[in-house]
Amino acid sequence: MSTLISNIGQLVTLDPAEPERPMRSHAALVIDDGRVAWVGDAAHAPAADTRIDADGAAVIPGFVDSHSHLVFAGDRVDEFEARMAGRSYTAGGIRTTVAATRAATDDALRARLRHLVAQARAQGTTTLEIKSGYGLTVADEQRSLRLAREVSPETTFLGAHVVPGEYADDRDAYVDLVCGDMLAACAPHARFIDVFIDSGAFTVDEARRILTAGRDAGLTPRVHAGQLEPDGGAALAVELGAASVDHGTFLTGADVDLLAASARADAAGGPPATVATLLPLVEFATRQPYPDARRLLDAGVAVALASDGNPGSNFSTSMPLAVALAVRELGMTPLEALAAATRGGARALRRTDAGHLGVGARGDAVILDAPDHRFLAYQPGVPLVRQVLVAGEVAQ
Amino acid sequence: MSTLISNIGQLVTLDPAEPERPMRSHAALVIDDGRVAWVGDAAHAPAADTRIDADGAAVIPGFVDSHSHLVFAGDRVDEFEARMAGRSYTAGGIRTTVAATRAATDDALRARLRHLVAQARAQGTTTLEIKSGYGLTVADEQRSLRLAREVSPETTFLGAHVVPGEYADDRDAYVDLVCGDMLAACAPHARFIDVFIDSGAFTVDEARRILTAGRDAGLTPRVHAGQLEPDGGAALAVELGAASVDHGTFLTGADVDLLAASARADAAGGPPATVATLLPLVEFATRQPYPDARRLLDAGVAVALASDGNPGSNFSTSMPLAVALAVRELGMTPLEALAAATRGGARALRRTDAGHLGVGARGDAVILDAPDHRFLAYQPGVPLVRQVLVAGEVAQ
Repeated sequence: MSTLISNIGQLVTLDPAEPERPMRSHAALVIDDGRVAWVGDAAHAPAADTRIDADGAAVIPGFVDSHSHLVFAGDRVDEFEARMAGRSYTAGGIRTTVAATRAATDDALRARLRHLVAQARAQGTTTLEIKSGYGLTVADEQRSLRLAREVSPETTFLGAHVVPGEYADDRDAYVDLVCGDMLAACAPHARFIDVFIDSGAFTVDEARRILTAGRDAGLTPRVHAGQLEPDGGAALAVELGAASVDHGTFLTGADVDLLAASARADAAGGPPATVATLLPLVEFATRQPYPDARRLLDAGVAVALASDGNPGSNFSTSMPLAVALAVRELGMTPLEALAAATRGGARALRRTDAGHLGVGARGDAVILDAPDHRFLAYQPGVPLVRQVLVAGEVAQ
Repeated sequence: MSTLISNIGQLVTLDPAEPERPMRSHAALVIDDGRVAWVGDAAHAPAADTRIDADGAAVIPGFVDSHSHLVFAGDRVDEFEARMAGRSYTAGGIRTTVAATRAATDDALRARLRHLVAQARAQGTTTLEIKSGYGLTVADEQRSLRLAREVSPETTFLGAHVVPGEYADDRDAYVDLVCGDMLAACAPHARFIDVFIDSGAFTVDEARRILTAGRDAGLTPRVHAGQLEPDGGAALAVELGAASVDHGTFLTGADVDLLAASARADAAGGPPATVATLLPLVEFATRQPYPDARRLLDAGVAVALASDGNPGSNFSTSMPLAVALAVRELGMTPLEALAAATRGGARALRRTDAGHLGVGARGDAVILDAPDHRFLAYQPGVPLVRQVLVAGEVAQ
């Protein structure tokens, strides 16, 4: 089954094989058997089984949201309203969601998760990482990952989200559990292992222990770090070859140098870079300072944008709004922001087949209700996702 | 034809007749012959011809967007991108759009306008004010208003948007034209007359002359003022009994006192208040300082939120994002922001039948993809408008 998308106003391929040509005019795209089979001038497009007329609209790669926490019960809209009225955000609220999640049935968690995934899909997200971290028992973490895996292959074990209340007086025992029975139960359902490094969560030394155990169990590390203060998490991420360090508002010059060096090594054929994943929807929802993407990009760091959709520090899954915020607040150009939200996210998930529309990539594409990708920032909040294709099939 | 909306998670009526009860739980709503006919406890809902199951979702009044400029040709995405890269916004860019608009056919203007109105509708806007102001000749201003009136009764003559290039050396002659032949040609197609008071546009004295002439021709005045500096426009608005003063970032204490006094007079049965209409999407798109809604609300000023959708200073028509920005940046609670975006907008348009869901109001309602109106701010950017009813008919 092949599909030709014709009459494209602007085709943004972001093909890593053509770094000097991220987008094309007068182009067409053919997807065959779920993969991009042909990209070129519309006048020379081959025949295909079906044809989609983009009517002059821009076509972009589907968004790759490499950071979300969507397996949970309840909401924290009261906490949100209180915070907006002046109370500051701390990690403590996570325990509220843990209690609700543990008490929920599988069906309730599944229904909520599927609803949120559908919301993300309607906004153009075609690859979505989902973390556990609201179970914090062996059974509840495993359940969260099992449910997440029903909707996405990109699952991350985050038993080390916070120390649950029942271990408040014996955090070492909780770290032992995460590295032992919990990891053993969860590893078969996860691709990544993550730790929240924060004064309200885990230390760098605890994170090193947990991530090393995870790596030994076959999982790829990733790290939450630098959200509220400099904490050494970025250096740990590079030390362990983590796929990503997420948040990254508070990075030292040495952190930036380490991340840039990892990107240079990647470009030289070495191990894949540790990506800095920025989550501006969190700063929007918490009034924390925004990270400085310009500093990272200028230093040569690999940068991703993701949503961090979760019930506490940000409940938006809107990758279009993340792009708009990156342009307004993080110092990115519209094209840099779009690249970070697609190709950057794919790098943060160690995926070479997603986040771009080069030949051979998955046929994950979004047709915008706009002639130009820059309208994502020029028309913030407007639902500009007209049609979503996942592996070449119309999904929305 | 009557319609019952049942299974409502939260019904936000904002009925001015019930100021102490802006919302209800366990409620149902009946719309009959285009008007709200019954509001009450779901257990006692009367029968109706058709039934809409809200499935636990919140139902809110349709948004009243009381400030937009949607009759134009071309776009200014290049200017937007340059501004985001560091160039500051000035009113000069308006002339770019004037040239494109004058050169466009009626059909091209109509198609663009209808597309933008459909985008606004999909985001829950059921009442939409539309200004002229990109024609700036007698024929082009009249044409803009004629096209706007095809899609909305709420049209505003804004011949005094900027002084067009051909009058740069004789602005008095342009003011004469606006007050004379242009007003005569446009008044039959407009409800309001507006002036952009700004160092790059018109002075307070020019505005007084133009608005007085408009009022004599049967139009209700409104004013753009205080966008970039204090300019005396708010005082003029109150002096002339204008429906609204729009932007309002830079208001003096005396301005706030005058606006508050006009709201008090309104509450005491006097003439309707001059509303302060805040447009935070403009500050988002220009990085100008946000207005302080808290100061206005605490002083007792009547406040509206609107989009100011236009190709230059903000191209978003997203009332949901305006609400989210009002909560994050302007010091409003979620309910205050929603009220300003509905009932406040209706007051700014001198409409008592829109912006609320009290008995007798137009049946303009939005069913959200959320259980609670606060999710508009809690999930910014997420398309939460599930269904839109206009005069009781499903429009989206």
